[in-house]
Amino acid sequence: MSNSLRTVDIIAAKRDSEVLTEAQISTFIKGYADGTVPDYQAAAWCMATFLNGMSPEETGFLTRAMIDSGEVIDLSGISGPFVDKHSTGGVGDKISLILAPIAAACGVKVPMMSGRALGHTGGTLDKLDSIPGYTTALSPTRFRDGVGGVGFAMTGQSERVVPADRKMYALRDVIATVESIPLITASILSKKFAEGSDALVMDVKCGKGAFMKTPDDARALAESLVRTGESLDRRVVAVLTDMSEPLGRMVGNFLEVEESIACLRGEGPADVMEVTLRLTAWMIVASGIEKDVLAAEELCRKVLNDGSAMDKFRANVEFQGGNLAELDAMDGRARAACSRDLTAVKTGYVNEIDAFAVGMAGVDLGVGRDTAADPVEPLAGIELLKKTGDNVKTGDVLMRLWAEDEARLEAAIVRLHGSVDIAGAAPAPRGSLILEEIAPE
Amino acid sequence: MSNSLRTVDIIAAKRDSEVLTEAQISTFIKGYADGTVPDYQAAAWCMATFLNGMSPEETGFLTRAMIDSGEVIDLSGISGPFVDKHSTGGVGDKISLILAPIAAACGVKVPMMSGRALGHTGGTLDKLDSIPGYTTALSPTRFRDGVGGVGFAMTGQSERVVPADRKMYALRDVIATVESIPLITASILSKKFAEGSDALVMDVKCGKGAFMKTPDDARALAESLVRTGESLDRRVVAVLTDMSEPLGRMVGNFLEVEESIACLRGEGPADVMEVTLRLTAWMIVASGIEKDVLAAEELCRKVLNDGSAMDKFRANVEFQGGNLAELDAMDGRARAACSRDLTAVKTGYVNEIDAFAVGMAGVDLGVGRDTAADPVEPLAGIELLKKTGDNVKTGDVLMRLWAEDEARLEAAIVRLHGSVDIAGAAPAPRGSLILEEIAPE
Repeated sequence: MSNSLRTVDIIAAKRDSEVLTEAQISTFIKGYADGTVPDYQAAAWCMATFLNGMSPEETGFLTRAMIDSGEVIDLSGISGPFVDKHSTGGVGDKISLILAPIAAACGVKVPMMSGRALGHTGGTLDKLDSIPGYTTALSPTRFRDGVGGVGFAMTGQSERVVPADRKMYALRDVIATVESIPLITASILSKKFAEGSDALVMDVKCGKGAFMKTPDDARALAESLVRTGESLDRRVVAVLTDMSEPLGRMVGNFLEVEESIACLRGEGPADVMEVTLRLTAWMIVASGIEKDVLAAEELCRKVLNDGSAMDKFRANVEFQGGNLAELDAMDGRARAACSRDLTAVKTGYVNEIDAFAVGMAGVDLGVGRDTAADPVEPLAGIELLKKTGDNVKTGDVLMRLWAEDEARLEAAIVRLHGSVDIAGAAPAPRGSLILEEIAPE
Repeated sequence: MSNSLRTVDIIAAKRDSEVLTEAQISTFIKGYADGTVPDYQAAAWCMATFLNGMSPEETGFLTRAMIDSGEVIDLSGISGPFVDKHSTGGVGDKISLILAPIAAACGVKVPMMSGRALGHTGGTLDKLDSIPGYTTALSPTRFRDGVGGVGFAMTGQSERVVPADRKMYALRDVIATVESIPLITASILSKKFAEGSDALVMDVKCGKGAFMKTPDDARALAESLVRTGESLDRRVVAVLTDMSEPLGRMVGNFLEVEESIACLRGEGPADVMEVTLRLTAWMIVASGIEKDVLAAEELCRKVLNDGSAMDKFRANVEFQGGNLAELDAMDGRARAACSRDLTAVKTGYVNEIDAFAVGMAGVDLGVGRDTAADPVEPLAGIELLKKTGDNVKTGDVLMRLWAEDEARLEAAIVRLHGSVDIAGAAPAPRGSLILEEIAPE
C-alpha cells in the first residue's frame, strides 16, 4: 500500500504521515501537470502535505518533479558559476537591482528570473519596466547572451518553465495551503534551478512587512530551503533579514530604480547596503570566487568604489533596450502627477514604521497590484523622509506620496494613518538587519 | 477571520483546527451543493476535516446542512413514532428484513431507506429484489402509505434527498477521506433524518467483516453518532456488534431472504436472532413503547411467537408487489445453476471464519458488486454448513457455493482457500455478539 502509485493511495499515504517515495511524488506531479490527476485530488494532497509536512528529501523529490514538468533554461555554451538570489518579498526591496550588477562585476554569472508585484510586496520586473525602453521579455537565447556577456540578465518566468508549480500555486491560493513550508520550498527551488542556477542565495525576510512574520517561521523556511538544496546537491544559502520597516527610503517602481542607482553610486541608505552586500557576498562565496563572506563583502565594496558595478548596471540597461540618456534625465525628477505629504501629528522619535501598511499604501497608489492582471504606475510611490530613530517635530513631513490621481492619494493617506509610531523617547538603536545565516554543512 | 464566510477562510479555519460556526458550515455545504464551491475546495476541506476532526456540535451543523441541501420525506398525515435502524455493513447481514416486521408488529413505524451491496458487504435492496415482483422503487406517497399502513416500507434513497452528501461521498471516495468519523456520521444521520425518522438505532459492526476493524474505531464512530444525535435533539442509540464471522448461515440475496423468513418463523440461527432482537428492542425503547430494553426484547419474542411479525413481513411483500405464492414455492429450492462445495482439509474444530473473505467470495459469485453499476445475481451465494466451534472431519462440507457459471464458482473457491481456520482443540465459546451499547444520556 505504502509504495502504491495509485493517486488515491498516494493521497492516503501523505494523509497518514508516511514518507512518500520519489516514484510516488513524481507520478503524482506528472499526473497533475498532464491533467490525469484532477484538481480535487491535488487539493486533498496539498492539504495533507500542509498538515503533515514533508522531509527535506521528499521536498527534493517534489522540487525535481516540478522541474521535470517543463522546460529547463539552457545556459550551455557560456560558463558559470551561475548563482541567483531570491527574496520572499518585502516592502522597498530593490536589492536585486543593486546586487546583480555587483555580483556580475565580481565575476558571478546571474541568470535572474524575477516576479511582479503582488499584494503589499513589490516586483523587480515592474521596477525595471519603469526604465524607458527596458524590456524584461527576453528570448531564451537573448537571456543567455546577457548572462554570458554582461554577466547578468533580468527576465520574467517563462510559461514553459515549471508549469506544474504554476498550476499548483494557483490551486493552493484558493484552498488555504499557500503557507506550507515544503510546498513553498519546492515552488521556489524548482523555479530557480530550472532557470539554470547552480546555487542560490535566499533572502528570507522576517517581520511585519514580510510573508514570514516571526523568526521561527522564517527560520523553518530557511532550514527547509537549505536542507532541500542539500538533498538535490545544490548549494542554497539562506539569510534571514529584518523586514519590520520598509527597506531604504523609496517605495515605488521608478523611485526604487532611482534609489538603486544611488546605491551603486555609493550613496545608498545603510539598511539597503547592509542587506545587499551580505547577500551578494554569499553569492560570491557560493560561486567559489571567495571562501569567506567578509572577504567577499570587501570585493563588493571594491567594485562599487571603482565604478565597475555601475558599469555592469548600465551595460545591462543598454542590453535590455533601456535608454540611458532618458534614464539619467529622470533622476530626481520623474514623479507621478499628484503629490501629498504625511506629516507628524506630534513631536518625538519615530519608534516604528508599519512596513505592511506602507506596502498596502503602495498598492493604493498604483505601485503594486491586488490581482495579477492589474496594471501598475511606474512613477507612483512613497518617499520616507523619516525612519526609525529619527527625531521629528509636529508638522514634519514623514512621507511624501505620489500618484496619478487624487483618489489614489486619498486612499493611501487614509491607509497610512497611524502607520508611524512616534514615542517620547528615542528607541533602542536598530541592530543588524542580518538576523541569521544558514549555509549547507 | 475565524467567523468569515469566504470559502477559503472556512477551509483555513478547519485547517487550523478551529471550531466552525453553523453559518460557516451551512454556507460551505450550500455552496458545494449548488456548485459555487468547486470540488477542489471541498476536497481540501474534507482532508482538513479528516485530519483535524469536528466536535459533535459541528457534526450536527454538517448533518443539518446536508439535510437542507435536498428534499425531506414528508410523513405528515400518518402518526409515528418513526424509528429506523442502520448498519455500517457486514457479511450475511439480513437483519433489516427481520427487524422491520418485528418492530412494526410491536407498533413502531419504520420508514426504511436502504442501500445496495458494495464491496464485501451486502445490500438490503438487492436482497428484496430477489423476491418475484417485489419493487423497492416506491413513490414518496406509496412509501408513506406503506409506513402508515403495514407499519414499514422498504425503499432506495431518492436522488433528491441529501444531494450534497451524495456528491461529497463520491468525492471522498477518490481523495482518501472516506474513513472520517465526523464525515461518516453526518452522511449517515443526514440520510436517516431526511427520510423522516425521529430516532435511529445504529448497528456499528466491528471485526474482520466490518468497516471498523477494531472496537476502538467502532466505539469512536458510535460515540460520534450518539453525541451528534444529541446535538440535533434526535435520539440515536448505537450498538456495537461483532462481525468477525458472517452473520447466520446464508450469504446471498434470495438465500438471505430465505433465512430471514426462517428467523420470522422462529427457526433462525442464534447469532442473527441475538443481534436482531437487541436492535429491535432499542427501536422499541427509542420509540417510547417500552422503557426497558429487556422488556422490549420480550415484546419482540411475543410478536414472533404469535405470528404477527411474519404477518407484517407478508403484508409488506404484498404491498410492495411481491408474489407470495412464488416466494413460498422458492423456499429451500431457488438456487443458482451451478454449485460447488468447500470441504475441510483436516479434522478438528472450526476456529475462525474470515468474514471479509466470505464477503469478497460473494462478490465473485455475483451476490455483491465491485462498482455501483454492476448487476447482481439473485440466486447466487454461500451456505455456511459449519460455523466457529463446530467439530469437522476431513472432507466435511464447510460451505456450499452457488453461481450462474463455473468461472464464478472457481474464483470464489480460490478466494475461500484458507478462509476457515481449523484447530486441534475447540475454541473458547463465542461470547455475546452485543459488544457495547451507547445510548444518549
